[in-house]
Amino acid sequence: MTISPGVSFSVHAQDGTARTGALELGRGVVRTPAFMPVGTAGTVKAMYVDQVRDLGADIILGNTYHLMLRPGAERVAALGGLHAFSRWQGPILTDSGGFQVMSLSGLRKLDRDGVTFRSHIDGSSHRLTPERSVEIQTLLDSDIIMQLDECVRLPSTRVDIERAMRLSLDWAERSKRAFGSQPGKAIFGIVQGGDVPDLRIASASGLADMDFPGYAIGGLAVGEPQDVMLRMIETVEPFLPKARPRYLMGVGTPDDIVESVARGIDMFDCVMPTRAGRHGLAFSRFGKINLKNARHAQDHRPLDEASSCPAARDYSRAYLHHLTRANEILGMMLLTWVNLAYYQDLMAGLRAAIAAGRFADFRAETREAWAKGDIPAL
Amino acid sequence: MTISPGVSFSVHAQDGTARTGALELGRGVVRTPAFMPVGTAGTVKAMYVDQVRDLGADIILGNTYHLMLRPGAERVAALGGLHAFSRWQGPILTDSGGFQVMSLSGLRKLDRDGVTFRSHIDGSSHRLTPERSVEIQTLLDSDIIMQLDECVRLPSTRVDIERAMRLSLDWAERSKRAFGSQPGKAIFGIVQGGDVPDLRIASASGLADMDFPGYAIGGLAVGEPQDVMLRMIETVEPFLPKARPRYLMGVGTPDDIVESVARGIDMFDCVMPTRAGRHGLAFSRFGKINLKNARHAQDHRPLDEASSCPAARDYSRAYLHHLTRANEILGMMLLTWVNLAYYQDLMAGLRAAIAAGRFADFRAETREAWAKGDIPAL
Repeated sequence: MTISPGVSFSVHAQDGTARTGALELGRGVVRTPAFMPVGTAGTVKAMYVDQVRDLGADIILGNTYHLMLRPGAERVAALGGLHAFSRWQGPILTDSGGFQVMSLSGLRKLDRDGVTFRSHIDGSSHRLTPERSVEIQTLLDSDIIMQLDECVRLPSTRVDIERAMRLSLDWAERSKRAFGSQPGKAIFGIVQGGDVPDLRIASASGLADMDFPGYAIGGLAVGEPQDVMLRMIETVEPFLPKARPRYLMGVGTPDDIVESVARGIDMFDCVMPTRAGRHGLAFSRFGKINLKNARHAQDHRPLDEASSCPAARDYSRAYLHHLTRANEILGMMLLTWVNLAYYQDLMAGLRAAIAAGRFADFRAETREAWAKGDIPAL
Repeated sequence: MTISPGVSFSVHAQDGTARTGALELGRGVVRTPAFMPVGTAGTVKAMYVDQVRDLGADIILGNTYHLMLRPGAERVAALGGLHAFSRWQGPILTDSGGFQVMSLSGLRKLDRDGVTFRSHIDGSSHRLTPERSVEIQTLLDSDIIMQLDECVRLPSTRVDIERAMRLSLDWAERSKRAFGSQPGKAIFGIVQGGDVPDLRIASASGLADMDFPGYAIGGLAVGEPQDVMLRMIETVEPFLPKARPRYLMGVGTPDDIVESVARGIDMFDCVMPTRAGRHGLAFSRFGKINLKNARHAQDHRPLDEASSCPAARDYSRAYLHHLTRANEILGMMLLTWVNLAYYQDLMAGLRAAIAAGRFADFRAETREAWAKGDIPAL
């Protein structure tokens, strides 16, 4: 069904609370549950854009904070938008910039109208308001625009969490108004409320009243235990309109993703597979593998001979170990490729399992393989 | 004609002193003049091995110094050799390690028998003799093995240059003996003698008397002006057997290569295209282009729309500028690709021009395009 002019979302199958479907945007279809590789500054680090597409990613994420500082939103617009700039032709979701203002920038000052901060690159002063964030994301030609919100770190006091949640609700309304009508594109509201159930519910209900095309859950995966995160998803889920996509921001490990899909989440993004790949860590059906470990130094076997990814299949663990130890760029290229392939394969597996009504089996099999761990050392 | 068991070299055409031909090794044919991308530590930095092959490289270079320290020659041998390890299936030339012992290692002590040095990685002590260098290169399963030599920096005194040249001649003989007979593979001697013509001639003649399958000119491109380098090539060339390949080590800029081909050189290696690519510098038919320069920041045009390389053709200068400024790995990947493509295209152009008897025209056209420089800024 249409959720915004030129944008539709359908749930094709449901298995328990887990669901699979399709989000159709002007620039293409996003099969859900979807993992969005993070293309921070206009590039999914260490990957050619065609590789990302070939792995089965339907959508990638761009970071407003990074792009507004360098090369600048107006410049990207003058160059034809982020798609032409980066050569990614599918949909792009951009965050609002708010989260990274809090985590990366220097000297910042939050007021009811917005946030003023200094660039971590050159110390220059910038300001983000709900309206300016939407304007920047529109200049980038983003397909899914996120409202500006305030995200508090956990643990925080109820007072702080509530204040930020209320401010975020206000900014949601302003963001939605600023977005206006953009055919083929959508704006998502963001549920805040920390680890406080009633605040989470108030946030979700408030956003649902505003009738957003999609809903994100923010402020999780910020250091709290996994069970807190999952409990918050369970708390919020009943208050999110079933016919709209739900996006869990910044999550997570493969296990986080499986468990969140089980609880009704449709979309994810995380730097984990790309960042880990640059630091010698591989994700696979055997779990997490540290290629820096000496056990791989003389191992002629591939990471996973059954993988769909050439990097996991055609190179020896000894070679990957060597590249990682020597800090070679090719090591980062290969392991990023391995990890994004694993994440996309996991999403494809989740979608197929839900469609076939065997999500529980898939989850059990997947967890069993992780628990079994890597193949024995030679 | 056969130059070593299972190895042959033929000059197919000559135009002035420039020549084109083919060096046939057990693992494949090297079309000459050839540029060998440098795969220092078992990887041509920031490139997938298939890309290197697809650009038209017939042979790559590996560095004995780096590989003996990490992952170690015996380990590479146990893993099936450098080809299986790195997935490069064509011929590989390895240097002797001597040059990098001098330029990279800590505390070293040279004696008539060899050189003892400390690893720049972990300070461990190692020793290279002519025999051990050949043994290491054989363990790596190198297709073209280089003799151990001593290379002096310029300027140096005649006394120092002569001593190193005589030692290198002695080590040439020992290296050749250690190499023995390896069907399908070859060992090259290295001409030394600094910038002193009669020492260069003595070195070349001495090596020619030993009847090496191929001859390298070493100790150039170490800081001397280009005209000194070219004069040394001219000095040495008449004393190198015409029916054997000639390899100018560590050279160089596109102009160095064209001028050296004009003087009868068949093979080259240099880190310049790969290293420059990691630092925002592109080589093209327009000359050298610094992508960090602000003139590219808003330029939607590609580096060279007529290039055979997707990285030069399909990405805007503005995007390459952004990636370079942001120190993104993709920027290094794309510009390394651009540069190796340009070098291989240049070699293909040189081979075709020599074969067609129009080397002088090709040289003039190429230099004219470089002199004209990059397209005007927008």
